[in-house]
Formats: sequence, C-alpha cells, structure tokens
Amino acid sequence: MKDKVISDIGEKELIRILLEKRDKLLTEDNEDILASYSDDAALVENTSKYTVVSTDTLIEHSDFPEAMTHYQMGAKAVTVNVSDILAMNAKPDSILMSIALPDDTKLEEFLELTDGILDKCMEYDMKLIGGDISHNDEIMLTGTCIGKTDCDVKLQSGIVEGNLIGVSGELGSVGAALDLIYGVSVDVEDREDILKALYLPDVPLELSEKLRNNPKLTTSMTDITDGLAVELGHLHDKNPGIGFEIYYDKLPYLEGLETIAEANNKKLTEYLLHVGEEFELLLTLDKKEYDKTELEEIHIIGKTNNNGRITLVNDSVIEEIEPKGYEHI
Amino acid sequence: MKDKVISDIGEKELIRILLEKRDKLLTEDNEDILASYSDDAALVENTSKYTVVSTDTLIEHSDFPEAMTHYQMGAKAVTVNVSDILAMNAKPDSILMSIALPDDTKLEEFLELTDGILDKCMEYDMKLIGGDISHNDEIMLTGTCIGKTDCDVKLQSGIVEGNLIGVSGELGSVGAALDLIYGVSVDVEDREDILKALYLPDVPLELSEKLRNNPKLTTSMTDITDGLAVELGHLHDKNPGIGFEIYYDKLPYLEGLETIAEANNKKLTEYLLHVGEEFELLLTLDKKEYDKTELEEIHIIGKTNNNGRITLVNDSVIEEIEPKGYEHI
Repeated sequence: MKDKVISDIGEKELIRILLEKRDKLLTEDNEDILASYSDDAALVENTSKYTVVSTDTLIEHSDFPEAMTHYQMGAKAVTVNVSDILAMNAKPDSILMSIALPDDTKLEEFLELTDGILDKCMEYDMKLIGGDISHNDEIMLTGTCIGKTDCDVKLQSGIVEGNLIGVSGELGSVGAALDLIYGVSVDVEDREDILKALYLPDVPLELSEKLRNNPKLTTSMTDITDGLAVELGHLHDKNPGIGFEIYYDKLPYLEGLETIAEANNKKLTEYLLHVGEEFELLLTLDKKEYDKTELEEIHIIGKTNNNGRITLVNDSVIEEIEPKGYEHI
Repeated sequence: MKDKVISDIGEKELIRILLEKRDKLLTEDNEDILASYSDDAALVENTSKYTVVSTDTLIEHSDFPEAMTHYQMGAKAVTVNVSDILAMNAKPDSILMSIALPDDTKLEEFLELTDGILDKCMEYDMKLIGGDISHNDEIMLTGTCIGKTDCDVKLQSGIVEGNLIGVSGELGSVGAALDLIYGVSVDVEDREDILKALYLPDVPLELSEKLRNNPKLTTSMTDITDGLAVELGHLHDKNPGIGFEIYYDKLPYLEGLETIAEANNKKLTEYLLHVGEEFELLLTLDKKEYDKTELEEIHIIGKTNNNGRITLVNDSVIEEIEPKGYEHI
C-alpha cells in the first residue's frame, strides 16, 4: 500500500488520510475546528482585535535543497508561514495548506510530508484547518497562516533615533549550509546545527510571546527571510532619515561558519548579511524598555541614528551595507 | 517594455507594479489596508463574530481551458475562492493571491492577469491585501479569501426532512462549454453565455447577501464545484437518513445545452449533474421561511425526505443519482 503512488489514490482519499492523521492528534479543546477539507472554507471565531493572515509558497526547485526529506518540506512550509505571523507580533492560530504534488509521489512520501506539516502544527500549537491537494510537476506547498493579536501590530515604520537593533538568534547558517551542500564541504563541529537551519528551521516562538507581553518594547519587527541587509534596506525605506548602525562583533553566528566561509573563499559577512531564509526576527527596540526587560533571547547588534545610512562598524572601520540579498524568480 | 518577460523584471518590481495598479483603484475607506506585499503579513480588523478563510489553487493544465486569457485566469482565481466564502454564508472581505508564473511570461500577460484579479476584487468589493510572486513551469494561482460573518455559519449538516432543495442559477454550462471546445462544436444561440460560465464565471453575490439577511431560511449551503451529484452525495454523507429528491424538469439550464448534448452523444443529465465548476450555490431551505421570502433568484429543484436516497424524478420514473463527478489529480 505504501508503495502506491498518489495518482492511484485520488484527492479525496488523500484528504481522508490526512484528516484521519490530524484528528488522531487532536486533544480536547478542539471542538472549534471546522475543517475546510470537508467543508467549503475554514471558520475561525474572532477572539482578538485583529486577524493576521500570511501566505507563502514553497516550490521544489527553489526552496527545497538537495536531499531534503518530504517530512522537512512539510515542516518548512508551516515554519515559513508562522514566521510571517510572528513578524507581525501575532500569535499563530491555524493554517491552511495547499499541497501540489507530482503524480508519481509515493503514498509513503505523502505521509511523511503530512507528518512534517502536522508535527509543526502541534509544536506551534496551531490547528490545520483547511487546504486542498492537487497535481503539479514539482512539489509546491502554499501555506496560509492565520494569527491573532490584540496588540497594535508592529509594522515596519515605527522606528526612531536611538532605538536598539536586535535579532532573535544566530545569523548566516542557511548560507553556510548551502555551501556545505553545493560548495566546498568541510568538517565543522556544529555541522548538524548549521544544516538544521536549512533543513528543519525553527521560529522564536517563546520570544514572540514575551514580545507580545511587552508591547512597548519593540518599535518595529520583521523576519529575516531576505537577509539582514535587505531587511534593513526595507526598514530604511519605510523610515526616512533613520540610520542603522550594525556592530560586526555583535553579530551572532555558529562557530563553524568561519571555517566554511574560508573554505568557500567568502567573507563571513556574505552569510551573515546577504543570504536570509533565517526565520529569526529583526527587531528595533525602545532602549528604556529594553533596559527594564532585558530579554536574554535578543542579541543586540546595533542601534539606530539620524544619519540615514546603513553601516557596519568593524573596529574603527565603517562600511556601508548594501541592501542586496538573493531574490527568487 | 511590455514585450519584456517577467524573469527580466524580478519579483520585487512585479509586486511594485501590482501594488501601484491596486492603489489606483482604491477609493476612500481603504485606510485599513495594510498590505502584506510590503509587510510580512496582512492585517484584518475583526469586526464580525467569525472569520472565514478559504484557499484554492488553480493550475494551468487542469483549470485553465484552451484559449483562456490571462485576464480570465486572474479573474477565475478570485471567483473560485469567493465562491467558497459565499458557500459558508459569509461576506467576502479580502484576498491574498500567490502567483506562480513561468519565466517566459510576458509583462503584458502579467498585467492582464493582475487586471483580472483586481477587476474581480472591485466587483466583489474586496481588497487585495497580500500574496507573493514566484516561478513555476506552469501558471499556478493560489488565492486565500477572507470572509466575515456574524451569522451562525451554514455547515453542511443541518438538513431536516421536508426542506426544499434549491440552486442559485443555471447548471451544466461548464460541461457543455468544454464539449464546445474539446468535443463536437455546434452553433447555439446562447453560445456566449455558455462559454462565459467556463471562461469568466460569476458568483451569486446579491443572493448571498439576501441569504445572510434571512438567517433562518437556509439549513445548509455549499457551492457546486464538484457537480450537483457529488455535492448531494456530500450532504447525504453528513446528514444520515435524509433523502434528496430532485425533479428533472425543474433543473435550470441554458437552452443550448440540449443541442450540445445531442451533438456530443451525451445525456443532458451528464452536464446538469456530473460536471461541476459551477460556482452556483446549492441550498437546502426551510419551507415555511421560503414561502415567506420567495427569493426569486433561487430555483427550487427538489425536496428532502426520510428515505436516505438521492433520486432524480423524471415524470413518473425515479432513478438513483450516482454521486460521481470528475476529480482532479
């Protein structure tokens, strides 16, 4: 049975299998799940001031690196969408997943994919409430994540001079992981952690909750999907006159990145600033509020000023950071 | 410029073009649009009891018939998603659209596609609030539609014996249109209307509003995307013991369908019952409430009973309706 391919099985049976798996995971407190897989659309009771909705498509050729398992693909499709919800200072609530697969996908692979989706839903305390299954020549997963928030949502235009700039975790691992796979591979001790950032990325869920509980702390928030440099460029565009000063020696990264950069004849900053797909948060913070709360999950990497430039300070050398990353399409 | 292909232009510039077009269409009362194209996710203020979310993917090879224009593709991607929202008795509010296109898509085609999306958004009084643009070998459009409702949402399990069964418009046109294109083509007077059901389908927006204003009228509601027979089968599964009796001579359809069926050596019921993609609503109605309101947009096609069967009554002949349609994948 598990050797069967999905074109032998049909959409409705695949959905039945998926729903059965999901329902096994449900505990009490799930009576509000009104599944769109079996109805026309999904229903969410409004218990907050705002609903936040993100949608993100992952396509095999550009988003799934070599040797990525179906489990990891499903998991990543959830994570990228949740990341966008956290970046709006909202709590993820539920997700719809449109799954497009080649006809020769094995049932076993479909099951792994849906395990990845459902495990991440459990981890993030979210409900899978809908979606559809269709055919495409390559795997394509479009998630739609629904979040809730009562906070005034953190857009990207609230930055003032003297804010601190922080990130929620290590940068650059995805770029280094790609070089481990497609470039010059080297042995480093934290290889597994570096590869995990690419194959099974995570989001700063706990920090996100703390940020919602400290609504005055952040003046802007975004996830670092396009790389720190590009995201700083966006913030720069939306906050005319504000400058962003980043301290090179404060940028957090896993140790192995230095060795990998060297082996691949790259500057470390290429990984740290210009790759993205990080799913960490980039934050600007009110300094007084930060001094009060000192959330240890936040790495302070710089501060804002009024010179309108984006700069990297390395000892006494100040360089402009070019807002370049890599762009799909 | 318009001969350029989109791979020369890049995702960010395409999004800029799309947003510029959208913003030209905006009138006052749009200050609550917080675009996820330029932020991480879209924000909807909760002004109703429930948020309803649907997602539907259209893929070129299975959802876009020969000679369909890019404008029609964009329009259809909006319509299919709105249809799901109406089927939940909710008012469409906003939509996110993930657009995946081949690299050699011309800018002109991209502009037509987005015109189709935006025109339908205007027609349905909805806001385009987010999405993304990516590359795929064939055109793939995933819409995520957000609706609002205070009504108790009409699920598909509230049917009782003695309900009337109604539909919101003519059936079978899509099946007939497909035969006009891929089968034996014949001249019929209402050819344009029949083809329109396939190329530029519409949804019963006004009726939907009246239904929300008469919350006691409907006991279940769905759209007829999989064909009347399949949808009746779903209702049957969710309402054990209930029978569905359909009167052949009450089924509404455009006149030309008889000629097209004959030329293609098919029974008319194949179009009327087994094709789908109609985007009309299938309703079960409380008889007393219906007698009070008599909404003329509803075609009464049958009634429910307690015999647990799905039957078609044609003069004195009673046949079982098999719940078959066509299934993608």
